[in-house]
Amino acid sequence: MKLHGYFRSAASYRVRIALNLKGLTAEHEYHHLRKGEQRAPDYLHLNPQGLVPTLETDHGGTITQSLAIIEWLDETHPEPPLLPKNPTPRARVRAFAMVLACDTHPIQNLGVLNRLRTAKLPEEAVTRWAAEINEQGLDACERLILIERGPFCFGATPTLADICLVPQLYNARRFKVDVSKFRRLLEAEAACLALPPFKDAAPEKQPDFEP
Amino acid sequence: MKLHGYFRSAASYRVRIALNLKGLTAEHEYHHLRKGEQRAPDYLHLNPQGLVPTLETDHGGTITQSLAIIEWLDETHPEPPLLPKNPTPRARVRAFAMVLACDTHPIQNLGVLNRLRTAKLPEEAVTRWAAEINEQGLDACERLILIERGPFCFGATPTLADICLVPQLYNARRFKVDVSKFRRLLEAEAACLALPPFKDAAPEKQPDFEP
Repeated sequence: MKLHGYFRSAASYRVRIALNLKGLTAEHEYHHLRKGEQRAPDYLHLNPQGLVPTLETDHGGTITQSLAIIEWLDETHPEPPLLPKNPTPRARVRAFAMVLACDTHPIQNLGVLNRLRTAKLPEEAVTRWAAEINEQGLDACERLILIERGPFCFGATPTLADICLVPQLYNARRFKVDVSKFRRLLEAEAACLALPPFKDAAPEKQPDFEP
Repeated sequence: MKLHGYFRSAASYRVRIALNLKGLTAEHEYHHLRKGEQRAPDYLHLNPQGLVPTLETDHGGTITQSLAIIEWLDETHPEPPLLPKNPTPRARVRAFAMVLACDTHPIQNLGVLNRLRTAKLPEEAVTRWAAEINEQGLDACERLILIERGPFCFGATPTLADICLVPQLYNARRFKVDVSKFRRLLEAEAACLALPPFKDAAPEKQPDFEP
């Protein structure tokens, strides 16, 4: 397997965590998003969105979109499971993940922030936009799991929800969001960051890391 | 089952198609998004994001996020399947759906467009933003399925990909995107719109429709 990613991409970070939780190793190819390397024609052939991550499987398949990659990893390498077995809890884990993967991360991503800059928004308004989007998404997530047992988002083991949460909290802090009020999310994050699969996937542990 | 939705919400439209494809009926409750009804405290208790759709199951469960609801419907009512059986084609269908559900629809949604208005973007720039986001997402989708058999996005039967495509093309036309260049997407849309489950889910067929 080969994973195309970038150290700071939250979506790549999610897939790195999932690979580590499954005990899988992949070859890594890094695409420097701020230098526009994801727009190289060879890469666009693999991923027509010009985004990371992309997974090339051992059987010649190409899979884009972090959540589709993680569901594929979970289906092809079932242990440990990243989703509960029963449909309703499964759906609640997926919904939590999608609050972040659909309604939060893409709206504070580099591409959208650059669009705001092109539309002549002052840099201060761009940063505020990113912070507010993060805060709004995390606030909904906190409420979604108030009724769930901890220490992870959904119970005693990490799921797709935690895999999406940890990179989003990393982003939120970059945009100076005060995350201290999200007590249930911070409890889950602490449980995750005690585990090597999460720790080793962190941006600062990647070979392409830049401060 | 009770589905909370709104006639024009693309995410609600997806779930209506999925229910129809499964031959399921649900009670419908409509929330007028432009009047802010999705922000009523009773509804926020069900869906802390204040978004539609939300599904209340027959067993007291509450599921948010359209793709999580559709995966739940597919797991609890397997026929006809909305995803291929094999992991790699499944992942490719999910990835196509997520190009629209993560990287397109949320960035042209009412909430984001209102944020742009609050940031004092002229109305013409807001509409151009929505059109460009739709065009970019649909362009990636067209490329993702150029190698796939038709007439649907992924072969001979509709999948989650088609369920996301039809509402997104509806949105794109509202924002005056020239969709005629997306020949493969239009082929899939035509195959879908020949089927009652897609036709009956259209915004103009819903009781809360307003021209």
